[in-house]
Amino acid sequence: MSLQRLLNIDVPIVQAPMAGVQNWELALAVSDSGALGSIPCGMLSPDQIVSEIVEFRKHSSRPFNLNFFCHDMPTVEQQALDRWSACLQPYYNELGLVPNSTNAATRLPFSHEIADLIEPYAPAVISFHFGLPEPELLNRVKGWGSTILSSATTVAEGLWLEEQGVEAVIAQGAEAGGHRGMFLSSDLSTQVGTFALVSQLSECLSVPVIAAGGIATAKDVKAALALGAEAVQVGTSFLLCDEAKTSSIHKQALMDSDATTAVTNIFSGRPARGIRNRVMQELGDMVEEAPVFPFATSAIAPLRAAAESQGKDDFTPLWVGQNRNGCKAESASQLIKELQEGI
Amino acid sequence: MSLQRLLNIDVPIVQAPMAGVQNWELALAVSDSGALGSIPCGMLSPDQIVSEIVEFRKHSSRPFNLNFFCHDMPTVEQQALDRWSACLQPYYNELGLVPNSTNAATRLPFSHEIADLIEPYAPAVISFHFGLPEPELLNRVKGWGSTILSSATTVAEGLWLEEQGVEAVIAQGAEAGGHRGMFLSSDLSTQVGTFALVSQLSECLSVPVIAAGGIATAKDVKAALALGAEAVQVGTSFLLCDEAKTSSIHKQALMDSDATTAVTNIFSGRPARGIRNRVMQELGDMVEEAPVFPFATSAIAPLRAAAESQGKDDFTPLWVGQNRNGCKAESASQLIKELQEGI
Repeated sequence: MSLQRLLNIDVPIVQAPMAGVQNWELALAVSDSGALGSIPCGMLSPDQIVSEIVEFRKHSSRPFNLNFFCHDMPTVEQQALDRWSACLQPYYNELGLVPNSTNAATRLPFSHEIADLIEPYAPAVISFHFGLPEPELLNRVKGWGSTILSSATTVAEGLWLEEQGVEAVIAQGAEAGGHRGMFLSSDLSTQVGTFALVSQLSECLSVPVIAAGGIATAKDVKAALALGAEAVQVGTSFLLCDEAKTSSIHKQALMDSDATTAVTNIFSGRPARGIRNRVMQELGDMVEEAPVFPFATSAIAPLRAAAESQGKDDFTPLWVGQNRNGCKAESASQLIKELQEGI
Repeated sequence: MSLQRLLNIDVPIVQAPMAGVQNWELALAVSDSGALGSIPCGMLSPDQIVSEIVEFRKHSSRPFNLNFFCHDMPTVEQQALDRWSACLQPYYNELGLVPNSTNAATRLPFSHEIADLIEPYAPAVISFHFGLPEPELLNRVKGWGSTILSSATTVAEGLWLEEQGVEAVIAQGAEAGGHRGMFLSSDLSTQVGTFALVSQLSECLSVPVIAAGGIATAKDVKAALALGAEAVQVGTSFLLCDEAKTSSIHKQALMDSDATTAVTNIFSGRPARGIRNRVMQELGDMVEEAPVFPFATSAIAPLRAAAESQGKDDFTPLWVGQNRNGCKAESASQLIKELQEGI
């Protein structure tokens, strides 16, 4: 209840921010249903971020969540990029493409520049992935009154986030789709299943826990609350919703019941869960040659575009969690209604 | 309810069979509390198995579960064993030991020989790990009236087990301690978290689901039942119980809150979850040089014995799941009482 008051929502469900498959339209439908809609900003330019906020606000005054990555922006060595290009060269040959030498970062971390632009809108909720921005920047955001959320993938990360002053912790279990929010360790074996993570974090934290990972249907919501979560974050079940922008190639993969998921670093440089496609199959899910996040994306993007134009998902990140039981072509408000039955 | 009738128990809790840390005494305490006690037989000789049954029966007429491994017994090439010895040689040097040339299998699969010996006792429940024995042997056991359980780590394995006629499926989520029951794939990325696995298996199977992996306390039991399980299997929470035979070295590791777990093949050749100790740290959790199950054990056993005699857990398998919140020094009947509050 206290979390619902904190987030100013009627339904303790957060729609997971999913960069690349949704914008303000899904967030709006969710927020208008009384839950918390999220706008993923990790892959947007500062101008696009403002435009998303403006569009949402045109239609609704309800609270929404702006989600940002907050990785340390590394410098990448040309040698690392060359190694990655060499690894992908056979695919360039196959598709008749010439590697591009530009390796621009496609995902920028939250910054004062972004803060300058969103400050006038003082969003009700801001969630971070990969930890938190540095304290001064974090305090600036808190100064506007925004409620701060961030994801923990281990008990240690949950305790750290609480210590840094987040107001609720998203317990991102190993089942979750998309990027692992891990930030205190890069060792994948530290990652804990949703069941064990939510149970333990809700025991040891004072701030509320939002359960995430594999929560797809009403009974899952009920179970997550039984584990001690005060709300759930649901992503995968929204992927086929009318208001999502999931590509038809992504949708097709989602509807293939034989498709299995794995955690891969191929598409960005950081581990993320998605359906195992050709490039993962052939290079292996976790590839040593992939450069540091977010620099793996540039070299694979032209391959993705060329394959997609042939209707193939060989190089497409097909983010999804380990439970697709809630994926249906329906409105987001209908999905919220169904999930609410577990509350 | 139907599962409770099937297993003839009052409390829908199965004590997970844990080879090496318990015998009939823990099983007895659990069964006498109205739940289902389990006797792990995977590391016992045929004579020892009979002796366990006899001891249990001396004290109680309640149902119990006999657990067996049912792996295909492979032939192992000398070359593979030599490679493993070479990998461990630095540790032999350090401890002043000489490698032993015998490489006897320490874990034998269920067989007609074992069936001959246990048939007179017709145990109420028999559970298998790593799939099922071949159909003729399975039918022989079913012929006595034993209820057959086996573990599934994926939806595909659950469907396969149901098709083969098991009467309930143990959904072993990725959080679980000890050996992964996986048998249709050896790809660790197929492994699903408890939350998503139990939710999906209870949707798609007609037989009852027993949830396992990370279920440690009453609220966890409640959540597992909300996900659709008809019972839970709990292992880790019993490790400090009075009736368990957990070694003091193992107990010490369990009580170290900084200890993290990982899935390793070092101790047997098959992936199993335990606390990461020195040998895992140094060789890596999953080691290519480890020979096929169960042949990794022999070469590491002398190292384990020597290190343990110095009070070190460097080479000891420290099996445990990802949720130690239920580990307490108390009686098994007290633990059952506490877990029952979630029902």
